[in-house]
Amino acid sequence: MTTRLYPPDPLQRLIADTLAAAGFHADIAAEVAEHLVVAELRGVGSHGVNRLAWYLARQRIGEIDAAARPALARDEGGLLLVDGRGGIGIPAMNLAVAALVPRAKAQGIAAAAVIRVGHTGRVGAYTEAATEAGLFALCFGGGGHAKWASVVPHGGAERVMSTNPYAFALPGDGAGPLAVDFATSASANGKIALAAREGRRLPPGTIIDRAGQPSTDPADFAAGGALLTMGAHKGSGMGLVAELMGLLLGGIVEFNWLLVALDLARFRDPAEARALAEDYLGRVRGTQPAPGHERVKLPGQWELELAAERRRGGLPLSDEVVAGILEAARSQGIEPAAYGLA
Amino acid sequence: MTTRLYPPDPLQRLIADTLAAAGFHADIAAEVAEHLVVAELRGVGSHGVNRLAWYLARQRIGEIDAAARPALARDEGGLLLVDGRGGIGIPAMNLAVAALVPRAKAQGIAAAAVIRVGHTGRVGAYTEAATEAGLFALCFGGGGHAKWASVVPHGGAERVMSTNPYAFALPGDGAGPLAVDFATSASANGKIALAAREGRRLPPGTIIDRAGQPSTDPADFAAGGALLTMGAHKGSGMGLVAELMGLLLGGIVEFNWLLVALDLARFRDPAEARALAEDYLGRVRGTQPAPGHERVKLPGQWELELAAERRRGGLPLSDEVVAGILEAARSQGIEPAAYGLA
Repeated sequence: MTTRLYPPDPLQRLIADTLAAAGFHADIAAEVAEHLVVAELRGVGSHGVNRLAWYLARQRIGEIDAAARPALARDEGGLLLVDGRGGIGIPAMNLAVAALVPRAKAQGIAAAAVIRVGHTGRVGAYTEAATEAGLFALCFGGGGHAKWASVVPHGGAERVMSTNPYAFALPGDGAGPLAVDFATSASANGKIALAAREGRRLPPGTIIDRAGQPSTDPADFAAGGALLTMGAHKGSGMGLVAELMGLLLGGIVEFNWLLVALDLARFRDPAEARALAEDYLGRVRGTQPAPGHERVKLPGQWELELAAERRRGGLPLSDEVVAGILEAARSQGIEPAAYGLA
Repeated sequence: MTTRLYPPDPLQRLIADTLAAAGFHADIAAEVAEHLVVAELRGVGSHGVNRLAWYLARQRIGEIDAAARPALARDEGGLLLVDGRGGIGIPAMNLAVAALVPRAKAQGIAAAAVIRVGHTGRVGAYTEAATEAGLFALCFGGGGHAKWASVVPHGGAERVMSTNPYAFALPGDGAGPLAVDFATSASANGKIALAAREGRRLPPGTIIDRAGQPSTDPADFAAGGALLTMGAHKGSGMGLVAELMGLLLGGIVEFNWLLVALDLARFRDPAEARALAEDYLGRVRGTQPAPGHERVKLPGQWELELAAERRRGGLPLSDEVVAGILEAARSQGIEPAAYGLA
């Protein structure tokens, strides 16, 4: 599969204009386009620009409402409820963070539930955004197993969970926040499909086949197998907690989400916190890497380095992904050539 | 190694009386003894009654202050700070939960930092306690790498993290809360030592040797190797976040902790939530188990079953663990025979 480099800005404008042409509000189209390009810049291709075509497909089947505008549905001081009203989840999550940050600053801690949303993109984006205000933040989501079951609990052979992701972040040092986000399954769905397309085996411990037996053949997943959880009972427990929480929040489109933010300045002066982070994180970055690793890369920080590099040099995109974007644009009457992209 | 069954109640009294004889306040001694026996009932031997001798050893070297009484050091409404004042962490964490629960009920969400504490026992105990009031709770701890470094970050070959545990829990159905707690390392320290004593190899992905190479020989851990993280970069990210948070909270004895509790009743009527949990968890429990598993066991719930069984039938303890307890008791002038235990 050939991969070429593309400049991020025209691509972002093309995606925004395509979404707007498909009926999304212009501001929401711009938010979503920016989110997808940032994910791609940071190396998260599974939640990157390839989602344009996928969002339009979900809109066509009526799962995502292009006209929807998220709203703050309830406000109880430290506890907020954001209703995505059936739209893409990205603007709803951005709204939740924007509402949550001043509450967490004012009260020390606050939380927001985000319900009735379609795909929310890269969940780490929201916890990282909260660190800019000096907050620790965490986020997790679930409740979608009725539609999206792909994961078995530890010791189980039937799909009753989704990938139920979590994200955690807090301010770091000059190299950026310390931030991690991940699926509680052993792998993302998209990586299994990619391995199948590329004819690769999966690492042991990733999937089981339809009989519940361990497998490394990605075809076994599509043939009625399932994803295992990360860290066996550990990821399984986190996933089940997220799934049940999502069900309790109600009104599920894809997943429901809980965001929590806490003001670290209540415990430590920000300048002191920064110095502590510089000392500790600097020490960790300077430790001996394991064989096969060039250096110890910190979560959240190495993605920022990659993003800066890609911002300068361009986004590496496969012909397949680009073809999908161009086709999506043309389907909405947008001519990619006008963006220098065809 | 021979294992025999022991009745939990006399053992709990013996532990409480031994701690009290060693200078711990009687109420704190009782709290700690109950915590250790409950951990043992639930199958968490690593945080069970074998800790009696270990706590006394830590007291002897001046790391744990028997006379310390934890205190609510700051109260900012939704944000609390509990100072363990250098004592065992168990009463400090119990105090934090007791203070946190009414705040979370009143405000929807609240958090407590717990600092200057020795060992806190089984962290899941605190999140589970919060579920009794209808709360979702999470807890994590870190900041102890200067003394307790045993874990390498993903891609690293030097110990710069601790086992940095997390716990998550929310109310479930009649079978108990859904609750999980775990180290973000691939294994607990204690399990490596146990494998070494019993001459067993470790599962691949648990440790590296001093050269940073993967190993399954538990002796390589003690010889300058290190624990890997669970789920590779996922557990590594969670661990680093917990470690940095612990450092920021300041005043570290073992780890510092953050507890967050959220009132689910703000989002869903408790009776409805219970019905949803019954439906979902019942379905999960009823799914086909994977080969080698008798049934699908839910985190937090199967441990309650085990505890009920052990409450009736006794605690299975190795001669080695029992010898340690009896010796600890006698070292404080307590005669185990008076408890029917020698």
